[in-house]
Amino acid sequence: MDHRFLYRRRVEFADTDMAGIVHFSNFFRFMEVAEHAFYRSLGFSVHPFRNGSEAGVPNVGWPRVHASADYRLPLHFEEEVEIELLIEGLRNKSIHYYFQFWKNPDSPEERVLAATGRFSVVCVSFDAETRRMKAVAIPEEWREKLEVAPDGLIPS
Amino acid sequence: MDHRFLYRRRVEFADTDMAGIVHFSNFFRFMEVAEHAFYRSLGFSVHPFRNGSEAGVPNVGWPRVHASADYRLPLHFEEEVEIELLIEGLRNKSIHYYFQFWKNPDSPEERVLAATGRFSVVCVSFDAETRRMKAVAIPEEWREKLEVAPDGLIPS
Amino acid sequence: MDHRFLYRRRVEFADTDMAGIVHFSNFFRFMEVAEHAFYRSLGFSVHPFRNGSEAGVPNVGWPRVHASADYRLPLHFEEEVEIELLIEGLRNKSIHYYFQFWKNPDSPEERVLAATGRFSVVCVSFDAETRRMKAVAIPEEWREKLEVAPDGLIPS
Amino acid sequence: MDHRFLYRRRVEFADTDMAGIVHFSNFFRFMEVAEHAFYRSLGFSVHPFRNGSEAGVPNVGWPRVHASADYRLPLHFEEEVEIELLIEGLRNKSIHYYFQFWKNPDSPEERVLAATGRFSVVCVSFDAETRRMKAVAIPEEWREKLEVAPDGLIPS
Repeated sequence: MDHRFLYRRRVEFADTDMAGIVHFSNFFRFMEVAEHAFYRSLGFSVHPFRNGSEAGVPNVGWPRVHASADYRLPLHFEEEVEIELLIEGLRNKSIHYYFQFWKNPDSPEERVLAATGRFSVVCVSFDAETRRMKAVAIPEEWREKLEVAPDGLIPS
Repeated sequence: MDHRFLYRRRVEFADTDMAGIVHFSNFFRFMEVAEHAFYRSLGFSVHPFRNGSEAGVPNVGWPRVHASADYRLPLHFEEEVEIELLIEGLRNKSIHYYFQFWKNPDSPEERVLAATGRFSVVCVSFDAETRRMKAVAIPEEWREKLEVAPDGLIPS
Repeated sequence: MDHRFLYRRRVEFADTDMAGIVHFSNFFRFMEVAEHAFYRSLGFSVHPFRNGSEAGVPNVGWPRVHASADYRLPLHFEEEVEIELLIEGLRNKSIHYYFQFWKNPDSPEERVLAATGRFSVVCVSFDAETRRMKAVAIPEEWREKLEVAPDGLIPS
Repeated sequence: MDHRFLYRRRVEFADTDMAGIVHFSNFFRFMEVAEHAFYRSLGFSVHPFRNGSEAGVPNVGWPRVHASADYRLPLHFEEEVEIELLIEGLRNKSIHYYFQFWKNPDSPEERVLAATGRFSVVCVSFDAETRRMKAVAIPEEWREKLEVAPDGLIPS
């Protein structure tokens, strides 16, 4: 259950560009919004540069090291898109996400893929004094809630 | 009832800047998101450059001619803000909106004003051939659903 | 000479929206870009949350407390706009800027005002420990380089 | 000479996020800014939805079908980055760009790669009546100015 997450986002006017569609860079913002909502659904938040940890959960951040997207159909103003997040890979210090953007998510007949994407995040901890980040193993509190999506959910 | 509208927006990571708070320009995007949600609540949508009208409702757009904001408290990542839209003025060809940004909207004790703002929009119609806009009277279908907020709701 | 600054910005594709013009919120980003270029021209930079001061210049930030804009003509993709910054007011802890957006800046015949704007910034210092900001007097190193624009430059 | 283009972009405050660095999505905006500057350097502009062609040059657009980025080092506020565009592939209806983001571009000792990226654009023409796009062969006026970067410039 923790290998997949669905998030709805309505396209805002400022997400569009003069071509009348969502600017291609904003698909990456949408993926990130889904990722953060996924963390919230697990009981976590992402607060870089916070001093210290809370409630015993180590204070980590998740900078991106790779991101990609493939565009099939444009997204238009005010349409509601369903962003499907899937965990494609899980390593000691990194998570690899796969995303699908579904148009017309409520219509079984018209539900169609607008885009797919990926990004990889590395788990880092912040040194409050040096304000530097370094890659660390994903804390156990996070790891035990994550699992790789089973075969077949992510097209190869 | 059509002089006021409430909209919830959760602060996204990309809304913030290196000061750790929502960039001041994004308050204007949030106001606009509330405005468009208000139109949807009335049964209308805003589609500039659409060719022709639908269902008898004239095809109009609402460019902004003035905008302002006063900032009191910062908005942070992931917090949910309630944007309150009020109609401050209603003229033949323009609408004047007043906005309040409420932090901690669900807590009677901690609910507090983060910012206020205003913008004025002018009703325009698009000429499909010339692709030019010109100010026109607000269509009756819109006007009959709008009214100015009663005295006391907007601080003078 | 330090009451006025000119900055050129070419409109980028992502600055536009589906109406085919620069989104109204981006005028505020443009004003800020001109403000920061103005500081650089004075030999200063703006780095919130930097720990400590450099070369004897106190480490201050400039959060916005008010912003406004009046829009006359749209800005289009790839056009170069000249943003004119003027100091409208200078107080102990705050600066009040006035901006003019000039279309066709290189053509004496076609140079025309697209928009005007204002914002007010408050000088704050950061407490490295509490990470809180508090309003402080504008440091002498800054103040001695700033002056209010003479009468007549800013329309009343 | 037309397989490579260099573009300088200074990081603006609104390009950053609360992690204090340029948001990962904005690298895609920067790539696009370099792409459009490249077209201008060739004497072309990109104006989707313009009615008709100018001066005999067919009116085409370049929607993105794929985009990716790999991040090595963060970009900070006010630093000037050099974006190097290279043509990695050139087909009948599409162009494949490769990008390198150079930090400290003016320092032979400190010049270092912050990120690389790619995107693919498809040449489309707009039907003024249907307002639909369809993939078309790259016009001869464009094609004759483009060539694939020689071996060795793009790491495999």
